[in-house]
Amino acid sequence: MHLTHYTDYALRTLVFLAAKGRPSTIAEVATRFRISRNHLVKVVHSLGKTGLIKTERGKLGGIRLALPADQIRVGDVVRRMEVNFHLVECFCPAHNECPITPVCDLKRVLEEAFEGFMTVLDRYTLADMICERDPLMALLQKEPTVAPPLAAHS
Amino acid sequence: MHLTHYTDYALRTLVFLAAKGRPSTIAEVATRFRISRNHLVKVVHSLGKTGLIKTERGKLGGIRLALPADQIRVGDVVRRMEVNFHLVECFCPAHNECPITPVCDLKRVLEEAFEGFMTVLDRYTLADMICERDPLMALLQKEPTVAPPLAAHS
Repeated sequence: MHLTHYTDYALRTLVFLAAKGRPSTIAEVATRFRISRNHLVKVVHSLGKTGLIKTERGKLGGIRLALPADQIRVGDVVRRMEVNFHLVECFCPAHNECPITPVCDLKRVLEEAFEGFMTVLDRYTLADMICERDPLMALLQKEPTVAPPLAAHS
Repeated sequence: MHLTHYTDYALRTLVFLAAKGRPSTIAEVATRFRISRNHLVKVVHSLGKTGLIKTERGKLGGIRLALPADQIRVGDVVRRMEVNFHLVECFCPAHNECPITPVCDLKRVLEEAFEGFMTVLDRYTLADMICERDPLMALLQKEPTVAPPLAAHS
């Protein structure tokens, strides 16, 4: 059970933008986190489409949070970035072939568990993720010891 | 975000054995759920290794629950059958390259959310999954309209 790299990188990008407090660039985020720039281009595009970041033009422009950090819930980021939440086959009507679906309680129990998961994430905002803002930025400003990867993590 | 097919099939197998109340076989479970027998062999092997089912020899033997259905928590099945719970990269020390790990609160929040997920699953046992035992068995005894797949679901 895991979140996609897509969601992972989206969360990192947003935490970085929240901590920096000024516009940044895809290149900067990729360098700071030592992750693939190609991969990040798609992540940032999605973050823009879903209204979590915006792009400012001009010399001091770049990408920035579309809302204050304390108004972006971690749960909303996960909801908007994950492809789906099909915990097991019967969550996906288009592909479900399980014959006991009409009378099985497992789906309801897994839905309740998923709600439990999201309820916790909805209690926190990006502002809660940067309580240690200064040490966080210091770690991100350290020079990487190895070159950033050219391809996405597998 | 999803559980593996492995866990999905393990849950179905256990629900079936709980509902049937007598020993069954891999072939029967595969036929009833119309899933790959090859895939199920591995699932049942794991269920045996982790102490959730046992095999009885003899003419009336087969696979059965190792404990009463009301003593097998759904959470324990998921815990034993999922490969890992590495929600994001920093959950896996062997592969983690995220530079802000020492001061980032995201891991703690995701761990808390995961606990919320498992807490719900631990409230239910296999016995809670078969409240509608008779209609469930009736659905499993219907003849499949198509032949069961030979290969595992993708």
